[in-house]
Amino acid sequence: MGRILINGAVVVPVTEETYIKEGYLIIEGQRISEIGEGLYTGSTEGFDRVIDGKGKLAMPGLINTHGHAAMTLLRGYADDLPLQQWLEERCWPIEDKMTADDIYWGTQLAILEMLKGGTTTFTDMYFEMDGVASATQDAGIRGVLSRGLIGFPPKGEASKAQAIEFNQKWHKQADGRITVMFGPHAPYTCPPDYLKSVVEESKKYDLPIQIHLSETAFEVQQCKEQHGMSPIQLMEELGVFTRPTLAAHCVHLSDEDIAIMAKYDVRVAHNPDSNLKLGSGVAPAKKMLDAGLTVGLGTDGAASNNNLDMFEELRMAAMLHKGVHQDSIAISGYKALEMATKDGAKALFLEDKLGTLQAGALADVILLDIDQPHFHPRHNMIAHIAYSASSHDVTHVIVNGELVVENRNVLTMDEKKIYAEIERVCARLFA
Amino acid sequence: MGRILINGAVVVPVTEETYIKEGYLIIEGQRISEIGEGLYTGSTEGFDRVIDGKGKLAMPGLINTHGHAAMTLLRGYADDLPLQQWLEERCWPIEDKMTADDIYWGTQLAILEMLKGGTTTFTDMYFEMDGVASATQDAGIRGVLSRGLIGFPPKGEASKAQAIEFNQKWHKQADGRITVMFGPHAPYTCPPDYLKSVVEESKKYDLPIQIHLSETAFEVQQCKEQHGMSPIQLMEELGVFTRPTLAAHCVHLSDEDIAIMAKYDVRVAHNPDSNLKLGSGVAPAKKMLDAGLTVGLGTDGAASNNNLDMFEELRMAAMLHKGVHQDSIAISGYKALEMATKDGAKALFLEDKLGTLQAGALADVILLDIDQPHFHPRHNMIAHIAYSASSHDVTHVIVNGELVVENRNVLTMDEKKIYAEIERVCARLFA
Ligand SMILES: [Zn+2]
Ligand SMILES: [Zn+2]
Repeated sequence: MGRILINGAVVVPVTEETYIKEGYLIIEGQRISEIGEGLYTGSTEGFDRVIDGKGKLAMPGLINTHGHAAMTLLRGYADDLPLQQWLEERCWPIEDKMTADDIYWGTQLAILEMLKGGTTTFTDMYFEMDGVASATQDAGIRGVLSRGLIGFPPKGEASKAQAIEFNQKWHKQADGRITVMFGPHAPYTCPPDYLKSVVEESKKYDLPIQIHLSETAFEVQQCKEQHGMSPIQLMEELGVFTRPTLAAHCVHLSDEDIAIMAKYDVRVAHNPDSNLKLGSGVAPAKKMLDAGLTVGLGTDGAASNNNLDMFEELRMAAMLHKGVHQDSIAISGYKALEMATKDGAKALFLEDKLGTLQAGALADVILLDIDQPHFHPRHNMIAHIAYSASSHDVTHVIVNGELVVENRNVLTMDEKKIYAEIERVCARLFA
Repeated sequence: MGRILINGAVVVPVTEETYIKEGYLIIEGQRISEIGEGLYTGSTEGFDRVIDGKGKLAMPGLINTHGHAAMTLLRGYADDLPLQQWLEERCWPIEDKMTADDIYWGTQLAILEMLKGGTTTFTDMYFEMDGVASATQDAGIRGVLSRGLIGFPPKGEASKAQAIEFNQKWHKQADGRITVMFGPHAPYTCPPDYLKSVVEESKKYDLPIQIHLSETAFEVQQCKEQHGMSPIQLMEELGVFTRPTLAAHCVHLSDEDIAIMAKYDVRVAHNPDSNLKLGSGVAPAKKMLDAGLTVGLGTDGAASNNNLDMFEELRMAAMLHKGVHQDSIAISGYKALEMATKDGAKALFLEDKLGTLQAGALADVILLDIDQPHFHPRHNMIAHIAYSASSHDVTHVIVNGELVVENRNVLTMDEKKIYAEIERVCARLFA
């Protein structure tokens, strides 16, 4: 921590649809203190670090609003399978065998990949979450963490108790980088009374809720058969939406569902790649945006993606809806950039200015190497971010005012050790 | 040229759905002479170059079956616009002003990007093609080149004469790396009689034809109004399909269209990203594959993509159709890999073994750096190529037995000079 100057970069603040062709950015402590046009010409003596921004683009770090980090352990293990077979025959048997140690290392691999790729905030819903929180604390990334809750007996109540304990222990820890939510998994894994009890706890502890909703047509159909209403209607009925709620997926929605979500300002984690890969469908993102909903982007777990690359989600959000609706202006590149940054922060109920570069915002900043063919010519750097850029262009990452990635090296993690530990835990898990 | 040994790499040959976890590959002259399992233990004395494959994955170079290279000049210039406005107000006025010099440098930028990203063969349809061919020859990439033909008077006949001259001058040049096709642009830019005359020339010179077909719903509708049949039916009627034909896009097809294409073994260039971005739609790739058609992948021009990243097309082909059809096994990762390599070669009417790694195949080989988070754990490297990899993972590229990219540096091109020339030509073009 200290004073950092980034000088001479293209600066894309994501406060409005313009950018600075050559500018500077000053960080003091956890926050951005100043952004200016042209080169910084003052003395550089008071800075702890000066980063040469020439040939680089500075933008807000990307915000991943949905995932299960430790599922990196399953990357490439179960592809091109029907959904139920993928889940029941591949994912669940391995997850049943996962220990706290496995999850710790799987999460380390995920954070390593996310930091290298310019993701400065990630969202997690899993189990054995103490290790996830420790990994988040040590790596220097920002994390929104939930102990995932399956509401069936006999474990449902114990899991909820664990969640409460986890939340109390970790909320606002790591210089405020860690925040928590209650994480009931889904309507089909949490019975109505259980969900009601989670709503009560969420109220008591003043914490938001994240939950998977309407991911597949099958799930919506099943919910209608069991409860006589859609998952969104059921959540309204159970009072879930009286709490700040982040709903993941939202692929199969009626217009009435969208109206309900708008009424309660439900926040959405749109995971276009995961929805495609699992054959779930294409979420009505354009309709949700038109209804005024806040839509962030997420990767979901690496078993259904298979990377944790938020630049790919950003690009997919800008591309997919144009094609599917045969409407070349459906979601603009700039809107997709907002979804991946400031709208993501809002979806996670984080501070107002997170996800932008402006004085007073938390200093989550990434630099891209733009001395590469796909960033030429320089007609429009925002279009280049949306349609041309890659997570692999990221060279520097600052989170909460701390430099955590420098010239593509993650300063806070031991990359070779992580690969070795992944090999070790996988040898047992997949034996 | 000479003898090259790549030793100790993961080798993905794309001859069948397996791979070698640790193997070697020997190149002699323009071709692969041997592939083996384990480390090569013979003497390395006879080799001109030994490449350490540890931490790397060797696979066939990617084959881009459709594009307009010099449109890199328009990258980021015209995004998020309705299609007609994009074309008529942005692309055409600039293209009208393009000189041979502009096109030469725009093509250089495209080739630079493609080589760095692991594309070893590209396809081009544009004008001022002598510069494109020279750039192809000098850069060391493989190119399938067409003088694009707009069939209206007064320029239609002159363009055809230019095409014939270009074809005679360049076919099989550059050690065989350059081949040519006739390139009538589309049914809506080439009147029926003109197309018939191109068919005659194609027969006379024994060359294939490439053409844009059924890209948009509007185009198909218009064709039906003007000719009483779909573009595919019209091509059959005009005898185009009696010639080896590569059809780009094929987004809006009836089942009858697909049956006609299968009857004549029409080859397809599927451009999923371009079709999405322009709002054209989603091509029925799964249906075409089920009908036995050969479907390669392409980027199209950088004005509608906006990069020339064949790993993104590969991934999109594997993901998009699963989501749109809500079928998680629609097109497998391995099939998409075939489409990006050996099926692409077949789509371009190139040699049988191009697009695979096997003894006797032309040596178009790329290496990926797999010491990165998104390639861990090592469950399945084919899945990692399809769903996790990026063009930015490419470190080495060999085309026709020549090393053209080494540790991410293009040995045959002057990167900084290209950026400077792009700036120069754009200053005039966009003044
Ligand atoms: Zn999830
Ligand atoms: Zn085209």
